[in-house]
Amino acid sequence: MSDGRKIVIIGCGAGGGTAAQFARKTDRKSKIIIFEKDKYPQYSKCGLPYTISGQIPDFDNLIEFSEHWFEKAGIDLILNSKVEKIDTKNKIITVKKENNTFNESYDKLIIATGAKPSLPPIKNLMENSKIISGVFTLRTIDDAKNISRHAGKSKNAVVVGAGLIGLELAESLYKNKLNVTVIEALPDILANTLDKDMSRIVFKNISKYVNIITNHIVTRLESKSGKIKKVFIKDNKTGTEKVIDTDLMIIATGLNPESSLAKDIGCKLSNKGYIVVNEKCETSIKDIYAIGDCTEFKNFVTKNPVSIGLGSIAVRQGISAGINAAGGKYSLLDGVLQTCTSKFFEIEIASVGIYNEKLIYGKFTGSSLPDYYPGGKQITIKAFSDKNGKILGAQAVGENAAQRINAFATAILGGLDIEKFKKLETAYAPPIAPTLDPITLVCDIISLKLRRR
Amino acid sequence: MSDGRKIVIIGCGAGGGTAAQFARKTDRKSKIIIFEKDKYPQYSKCGLPYTISGQIPDFDNLIEFSEHWFEKAGIDLILNSKVEKIDTKNKIITVKKENNTFNESYDKLIIATGAKPSLPPIKNLMENSKIISGVFTLRTIDDAKNISRHAGKSKNAVVVGAGLIGLELAESLYKNKLNVTVIEALPDILANTLDKDMSRIVFKNISKYVNIITNHIVTRLESKSGKIKKVFIKDNKTGTEKVIDTDLMIIATGLNPESSLAKDIGCKLSNKGYIVVNEKCETSIKDIYAIGDCTEFKNFVTKNPVSIGLGSIAVRQGISAGINAAGGKYSLLDGVLQTCTSKFFEIEIASVGIYNEKLIYGKFTGSSLPDYYPGGKQITIKAFSDKNGKILGAQAVGENAAQRINAFATAILGGLDIEKFKKLETAYAPPIAPTLDPITLVCDIISLKLRRR
Repeated sequence: MSDGRKIVIIGCGAGGGTAAQFARKTDRKSKIIIFEKDKYPQYSKCGLPYTISGQIPDFDNLIEFSEHWFEKAGIDLILNSKVEKIDTKNKIITVKKENNTFNESYDKLIIATGAKPSLPPIKNLMENSKIISGVFTLRTIDDAKNISRHAGKSKNAVVVGAGLIGLELAESLYKNKLNVTVIEALPDILANTLDKDMSRIVFKNISKYVNIITNHIVTRLESKSGKIKKVFIKDNKTGTEKVIDTDLMIIATGLNPESSLAKDIGCKLSNKGYIVVNEKCETSIKDIYAIGDCTEFKNFVTKNPVSIGLGSIAVRQGISAGINAAGGKYSLLDGVLQTCTSKFFEIEIASVGIYNEKLIYGKFTGSSLPDYYPGGKQITIKAFSDKNGKILGAQAVGENAAQRINAFATAILGGLDIEKFKKLETAYAPPIAPTLDPITLVCDIISLKLRRR
Repeated sequence: MSDGRKIVIIGCGAGGGTAAQFARKTDRKSKIIIFEKDKYPQYSKCGLPYTISGQIPDFDNLIEFSEHWFEKAGIDLILNSKVEKIDTKNKIITVKKENNTFNESYDKLIIATGAKPSLPPIKNLMENSKIISGVFTLRTIDDAKNISRHAGKSKNAVVVGAGLIGLELAESLYKNKLNVTVIEALPDILANTLDKDMSRIVFKNISKYVNIITNHIVTRLESKSGKIKKVFIKDNKTGTEKVIDTDLMIIATGLNPESSLAKDIGCKLSNKGYIVVNEKCETSIKDIYAIGDCTEFKNFVTKNPVSIGLGSIAVRQGISAGINAAGGKYSLLDGVLQTCTSKFFEIEIASVGIYNEKLIYGKFTGSSLPDYYPGGKQITIKAFSDKNGKILGAQAVGENAAQRINAFATAILGGLDIEKFKKLETAYAPPIAPTLDPITLVCDIISLKLRRR
């Protein structure tokens, strides 16, 4: 497979870095170059909240593959370099590094430019086109370092957005001994990950530590000497305003794709600006691949388009793009399962597939251990099927939620239906799990519903 | 479904008790009688070692369904009653309770008589047809109580057999502050559950607490005033004898089916005396079902006959027999997956399906968390496929082994192959699991092997 191929990757995040590694594994002789606009080699963005909390003791720990590692693998990693233009006709990109601008040719190009935080329309958020002091978004190691430094001299913090990242950050700030308030525009926290009844379990627990205000949007900020002092919020329903004193605010209301390079060359984008890719991570333009948070693929269950936005998927796309760009053959599954998990204080959550209460669903709450064995912890599972009993999705809150959701992910992948899966012989032993695991007991409930229809 | 049906169940273990419950759920009006030879209602046999260790604080805790519970469910539970004969022609059984013998008719009969400990040929084990004082087997609450009482006044203990129960007992005795020696005739511990390389991980850990001697059989005992004092063991290879001083010995070398009632009526039995049943738990005789440790069904993967011997399967058979006997319809999966798990000191183990090194296999050892997140624990997974990549079995030792094996159980149930399962999007978050879970990474290894063939 050594054809002197030159693979250029834009972005050294989880997707780009993985693509480089798998391209190298696939073809030992191709030239591989990564241009990364930031100053760090491949690191875990998902780990950032845990550096702020101190659970990961050092920011450097996040670096998964060092410059030296890439060098040893024969991959040219060029940091602090921004790709400014792609010339698809001549297969050349233009790169700016410090004050130099130069061209680089490619045979295969992988766009892994990621996403940038979306900013809600908040009055006085910006001053001289810059976010005012004390207000942050979290996307890079430097963001995390800045937040961490600022948290050290703050007493009160506001987090805007009660999604996964928002709540991870709320916990991190709490662990920095700050008084934390989370503001969420929607009626419920974790609205993209859990149904209301499931997220309520999390809400109840997190509320012991931080103040969560739902149904409110942040309207404006007040600062003093250029530093944030007050956050004004408004009740979505009544319009009533409240004000919160704060020294620190983090905006965690989602991401927008970094797809301008792709847009400029006429790559097919979705309405929201995501680069449309297939199971080989090919874009609409020959020899150009795209992966990670800047892309859109399809959901495994519905086959409808979905934006990525999970590191786990970016890595799998990186494997696919890397192998394909290097001349190998690799196809992702026929869509993404969107398996995801997180943990807030004591409670683990996870979900997979699709879920809405128009589907057939069942819910089961039980103990992680047999009743007679001390120390069992609560686990609640909600599972979803179509009217023929085919498993489409599941959510879990509590003990071993993630691993239990992996079994559902496997069931969806295998096209299993409720009647079969409910009979699964799960592993049983008194100190480990009950005779019938909650993953099958929830299916019994759906099975009953299906028979009563 | 109310046809005045009379369902008689012999044995109130996990299988029999569950059968009664599901018969009742299926038909509210049928008469249901359970004859149990012991004096306890349905309790967890699997929990017995943990009452000895003290992890389950009271023997009564093991009782999952009380006499009162059965009464309320309209189920006649007759304790201390031994079924002595079945008359299939007249559909009558003969029962002995205390000094009375009486007949009871049935429409449907469920045999759930379980198994009894098998005793290896050890010289001086018996005195006057009774096992000598200080030597025990573990099958009932009374056994556990006797062991517990005896352990309280002992210093040294020997456990014969290093299977699941033997090692669970070794840990229990260790927790009673005894010096424990485990004697195993085979070269490896847990030979029915794990391959040698996997069981070595467990061996290494358990050896920190108890003394394990493999490749040795117990040849004879020496007692004083009718109480055990010395255990003589012999090296299987060299024939060299050793002697171990002990106050207590437990034999945990497996079970033999309690199938004499079934044998007497000409029920089809396996060579080893297990009652042969199908997916409805029907025996070869009309209107007679059998479930649990006295039965043999088939393996899901090979379709070859296998004896049961797991509480988890007994319960599932109980569901099937109970529903079918009461006039409902229920089929088990097309064979048993034999998913099993246990925990010894710090280490959890689990396995599912079939495994032998003649199959294609891969092994992966990694951390339960991303490298950059502190506190990750070791997990080793070995998975097996046929030459077409179809997943046939898996073994796991370490963190969350059981739940990880449940995903493999699901994969086997869904007929998934390695190429598909290795792409599973597993749940990822830094405090919970790595980007690519060991359950998929082990499949990558098999995938490589398959391609190199």
